[in-house]
Amino acid sequence: MERTSCGSLRQEHKGENVLLKGWVQKRRDLGGLIFIDLRDRSGIVQVVFNPETSKEALAVAESVRSEYVLEVEGKVVQRDESTVNEQVATGSIEVVATDVQVLNKAKTPPFMIENDTDVAEDVRLKHRYIDLRRSEMQETFLIRHKTTQVIRDYLNSDNFLEMETPILTKSTPEGARDYLVPSRVHGGGFYALPQSPQLFKQLLMMSGFEKYYQIARCFRDEDLRADRQPEFTQVDIEASFVTKEDIMRMTEGMMKAVMKEVKGIEIDTPFPRLSYMEAMERYGSDKPDTRYGLELVNVSSVVSESGFQVFEKAVFSGGQVSAINVEGQADQFSRKDIDQLTEEVKVYGAKGLAWMKIKDGEITGPIAKFFGEPEASSLKEALNAKDDDLLLFVADKSGVVQESLGALRQKLASRLGLIDRSSFNFLWVVDWPLFEYNEEDGRYYAAHHPFTMPAAEDEQHLLDRPESVQAEAYDIVLNGYELGGGSLRIHKRELQEKMFEALGFSREEAEEQFGFLMEALDSGAPPHGGIAFGLDRLIMILAHRQNLRDTILFPKTASASDLLTDAPSEVAGKQLEELHLKLNKKK
Amino acid sequence: MERTSCGSLRQEHKGENVLLKGWVQKRRDLGGLIFIDLRDRSGIVQVVFNPETSKEALAVAESVRSEYVLEVEGKVVQRDESTVNEQVATGSIEVVATDVQVLNKAKTPPFMIENDTDVAEDVRLKHRYIDLRRSEMQETFLIRHKTTQVIRDYLNSDNFLEMETPILTKSTPEGARDYLVPSRVHGGGFYALPQSPQLFKQLLMMSGFEKYYQIARCFRDEDLRADRQPEFTQVDIEASFVTKEDIMRMTEGMMKAVMKEVKGIEIDTPFPRLSYMEAMERYGSDKPDTRYGLELVNVSSVVSESGFQVFEKAVFSGGQVSAINVEGQADQFSRKDIDQLTEEVKVYGAKGLAWMKIKDGEITGPIAKFFGEPEASSLKEALNAKDDDLLLFVADKSGVVQESLGALRQKLASRLGLIDRSSFNFLWVVDWPLFEYNEEDGRYYAAHHPFTMPAAEDEQHLLDRPESVQAEAYDIVLNGYELGGGSLRIHKRELQEKMFEALGFSREEAEEQFGFLMEALDSGAPPHGGIAFGLDRLIMILAHRQNLRDTILFPKTASASDLLTDAPSEVAGKQLEELHLKLNKKK
Repeated sequence: MERTSCGSLRQEHKGENVLLKGWVQKRRDLGGLIFIDLRDRSGIVQVVFNPETSKEALAVAESVRSEYVLEVEGKVVQRDESTVNEQVATGSIEVVATDVQVLNKAKTPPFMIENDTDVAEDVRLKHRYIDLRRSEMQETFLIRHKTTQVIRDYLNSDNFLEMETPILTKSTPEGARDYLVPSRVHGGGFYALPQSPQLFKQLLMMSGFEKYYQIARCFRDEDLRADRQPEFTQVDIEASFVTKEDIMRMTEGMMKAVMKEVKGIEIDTPFPRLSYMEAMERYGSDKPDTRYGLELVNVSSVVSESGFQVFEKAVFSGGQVSAINVEGQADQFSRKDIDQLTEEVKVYGAKGLAWMKIKDGEITGPIAKFFGEPEASSLKEALNAKDDDLLLFVADKSGVVQESLGALRQKLASRLGLIDRSSFNFLWVVDWPLFEYNEEDGRYYAAHHPFTMPAAEDEQHLLDRPESVQAEAYDIVLNGYELGGGSLRIHKRELQEKMFEALGFSREEAEEQFGFLMEALDSGAPPHGGIAFGLDRLIMILAHRQNLRDTILFPKTASASDLLTDAPSEVAGKQLEELHLKLNKKK
Repeated sequence: MERTSCGSLRQEHKGENVLLKGWVQKRRDLGGLIFIDLRDRSGIVQVVFNPETSKEALAVAESVRSEYVLEVEGKVVQRDESTVNEQVATGSIEVVATDVQVLNKAKTPPFMIENDTDVAEDVRLKHRYIDLRRSEMQETFLIRHKTTQVIRDYLNSDNFLEMETPILTKSTPEGARDYLVPSRVHGGGFYALPQSPQLFKQLLMMSGFEKYYQIARCFRDEDLRADRQPEFTQVDIEASFVTKEDIMRMTEGMMKAVMKEVKGIEIDTPFPRLSYMEAMERYGSDKPDTRYGLELVNVSSVVSESGFQVFEKAVFSGGQVSAINVEGQADQFSRKDIDQLTEEVKVYGAKGLAWMKIKDGEITGPIAKFFGEPEASSLKEALNAKDDDLLLFVADKSGVVQESLGALRQKLASRLGLIDRSSFNFLWVVDWPLFEYNEEDGRYYAAHHPFTMPAAEDEQHLLDRPESVQAEAYDIVLNGYELGGGSLRIHKRELQEKMFEALGFSREEAEEQFGFLMEALDSGAPPHGGIAFGLDRLIMILAHRQNLRDTILFPKTASASDLLTDAPSEVAGKQLEELHLKLNKKK
C-alpha cells in the first residue's frame, strides 16, 4: 500500500484504507480506547485503537510513547459530531487502526514539541533536531524553500544564470574581519571565506555572462548581535549594460512575486523612494519603518528665535531642532513616562527631551513660556498639532537629533501599538553619500564598498571634496529592516584607481590587493551593477520570526558555537602540524 | 531604444533599427569599409561601417580594437548572397551602423578568445575573465545553469525541500582531510569545512522534514588529481520512510529529465543494475563504462588443467584467469604492440599479459601449445572467439586480474575508437561490501561511510565476519565515471554503536565524536536514506569537457592555488594573533 500523509486526510477520504507513517505527538488512553495523534510533515491526524483492533496491535499501541516512529494501517472514519475538532485540519475524521508497527523508539524528549515554547534557547539548540519538529519551525523552513524557488524562477525567466563562486578565496583587509583557512600546501598561506561574492560577480561581468545570480553563503567573523550570524545567505545579483532603474525594477518585480507566491499578498510597485537625507530627516533612520507615522519634523526655523536657549543654541551652532507629534496621547504620558523616554534618547547622545502638550488650543508644559506668538502658532502648524497632542523635541547636532528621535519613534510605535504586523512596507533609500568619515582614524571609508560608482557629476570631487560625493547606490528596506542594497560599479580602471587613492591606498597597496581587478577592468569591462540582499532577514520578516537564528537550520550562538555538534572544537596536533601552525596560548 | 542581443538577429529582422551592446570580437578594414564582429552572451553579429555612416562614427570605428566594449546603433540589412556566412547563426544579415560609442577600452588580450585553444592553462586561469569569454566556456556554464534548474524543478515537484546546512562545522577524524577554520572566540578551537552534509541531512530526517535536498559546496583537503578540486559541488538528497527502490527510481527520473531538458536526449529507465561482484568480474571496474564491449571473461575453470603453469598456479592459489577478446583485431597488434600492452597491465601489479590469436579456427601464439582439446574449444566457446580475434589473458590474484584487465579494456576501447561519444550509459552498481580491509593498518574501514545500513540478513555478522557483510548501498555510474552514490542509513542507536565497534572505535571515542548523532537516533529517528552525486562531474560529461576545472568558474590549480586572485596568501600578523595562532615555520 502507498503511504498517505497524515495532514491530508479529510471527510472525502471516509471509508478508505490508509497507510500512515509518522511520529507520536500524544497518546491518550480513554475508557478502553487508545488515541494517538500521529504527526508527519503535512500535519497531524488522530488514530484510534479500539477493542476491535487486533490484540497484537493494541498491545503495541499501549507501549508507545511520545516521538515513537510508527507505521499504522487503518480505515478513515467520520468522527461523532461531538468529537469533531475544528482546530485541526483533519479534525472531522479519525483513522481506526487495524495494524501498527514501531519503526523506532524514542526517549522522552527534553522538552515539549509545541509552538510559543519558553524553553531556554540553548536547550533547543543542543537538541535542534527536536526543536525543528515544532510546527512553526517546519512552517518557517517551508517559507524559506518557497521563497528561494520563487526568486530563482523569477531570475531564470529574466535570463539570469545561476553561477557558483569560490568559498576558498583571498583575504582582503577592507571590510569586516575574514574567517581564515590555513593552507597545507602553501605553508604560511591562508584562504579567506568570502564576505560576499562582490569581486567574483564583477569578474563574471567582465567574463561576458551579462546576468548572474547566486544564493550565496557569506561569512563574517564579527562579534555577534541578535541579528547576525557567522555565516549567512545572500541573494546576489549582477548584470551588465544596466541602469539603476533596471536593477530597481527587476528587484521590485522579484519582491512582488515573492509576496504573492509565498504570502498571497499583492504589493504595489514601484516602491516609494526616499533620499538618504530625507530618510534621516523624516524618520531618523536610513532604513525607515513606514508602517506607522510619528514622523520627525525639523522645526529649526520656527524655534531659532524663540528665546529658549537650548533650541536657539542648537540651531545657531549648526545643529537642528526636530520634533515628533504623538497625536492624541497627551494624557497618556505622565512626567514619569516622559522622564523614561528622556533616558532612552540619552543613549543616543541627546542631552535631553523637551516636551509640550496641547490643551484647549494652547501649548503647555515647562518650556511653553518661551513661545509667544507667532512662534506658538507656527509650531502648531509645522507639527499639525491639535488638542491632546504630545510634542517631543530634541535639539542637538543633526546626527544626534535624527538618531535619537529615530529610535524614540520606534519605541513609541511599539508602545502605542501603531505597527500593523500584517503589512509589508518596501521602500528604496537612494542618493547615498559615497564615503563615510571615521573620526577615530581620521580617514574616509567607502560607505558601501570601494567598487561603488560615484555620481557622474561628483566624480571630479573624489579627492578634493569626498564628503560631497554621492554614490550610484540604492538600499532596499522592508518594515524598518535593511534587506540589502546595491549600486552601479566602477568599470574603468582610472576611476577605480582614483577611488583607492581617495580611500588612502598607496598605488602599491592597491596593486597588491586588487591588481587582478584593475587588470580585468582594463580588459574590456562592461558597465555593470547589481544588488544583494539577506535571505535570512527576508525569511525572518516573512515568517514573522523575532530572531535570525530561527530562520537558519543549524545556527550558531552569540559566541559562534554550534551547541549540537560542539563546534568549534580542538583538533589533533598532527592536523595543526600539517598546516604549519602552532597554538599561541594565552597566559 | 531597447537593447537587442547580437546573436538573435535573423533575416526576419531586415529593416529594423537596433541597439547592440557587446565586445569587439574582430575588426577588419576592407576597401573603405570597416567590419566589426560584435559579440555578446547570445552570439556574434557583423556590423558594417560604410561611407554613409557619420564621420564621427567612422572615426570611432577606426579606433576600436579587440575586446573593446561598444554600443552600436544601426539597421539590419540582408547580406549579398556572395557574403552570406553559413557558419554563423546571424550569417545572412549584417547591421549597418549609424552610430557607435566606446563604453570601455581594452588592452590587447593575453590570448585569442577562441575554442580549442592551446594556451597554457596557467595563463588561462590567471586571466580567467578572458578565458570564460570563449564560447565553449559560455556554453558549459549555460549547461551547468540549466542542469541545476532541471534538478531543482524535478525535486521541487516531488515535494523535496531545499535546505541549507552549515559550512562552519565540526572536524571529524574519519574520511578525508578537513579544511580547518580557526576560531577567534574560542582560542584553540577550530571549525571544519564539510566534506559533505551527510550528518546534517540525517539530522534533518530526525527533524521530521522527510524530504531534503541541497546543491551543496563540499571541501576536501586532499592532494589533487586532474579530476579533483578542493571545493566541489554535490547534489545532496535524503528522504525518510523510503526503500532503496524509491531513491533509485527518483534518481532515474531526475537523470531522465536532465538528459531530456539539457541535451534533448531520451534515455531509458530503469537503468541496468550490476552487482559490485559482477561489475568487477565483467568490467574489471566498480564504475564500468558500458558504451563498448571488450568484456572480461573468467576462464579459470577452462584453463585450470591446461598444463600451462602460470594459469594453473593462479587458479590453484585462489586467484583467477580472465581474458578479453579483442574481436577481429589479431592482425592489428604486433608483438611490439602487445609488449606495450603488457607494460600497461604491469602498472596494476600483473606479472604479464598472455595472448593468443585465432587463425583458421585454431588458437595460435606462444602459449597455444598448452591447450589441446577439449580446452582449446572450450576456451574459444567461452570467449566467443572467431578467426582474427586477439585474446588477452591475465592470471593472478582476483583483484589484480580485474583491475589490470579493467584498465586495459579502457585503453583498448580508446585506441580502437570503440567509444560512442554521443551516448550516455547510466547504470547502477549495487550489493556493495560494507567494509574495506586496509592491509597497512590491519583494520576495517567503512567502504562508503560509517552510517550506511548493513543488509538485514548480514547484521548478525558485523563483528565476527565483517568482510562478508553487504551494504544497502548503490552507486550511479555514467560512461565509466562514478557520478555518486547513496545508501539507506542506520536509524537505530544500537546498530550504529555496533557499527562503530566494528570500525574499531572505543565506546568513548564514538561518544565523543558522534554522541550528538547517537542521541538523535534515540529521539525518534525515522528510517531514511539518500543519495549524493557530483555536479561538476555530471556537467563535465554533459558538456563533453576533459577536465573538472573547465566546469568550475574559478577553479584551483593542482597545488590548490587560485592564480587569478593569488589565494592562498599571507595574512597580517594581527590576524593570526586574533586567532591565537603562530606560524610553525619549516627550517
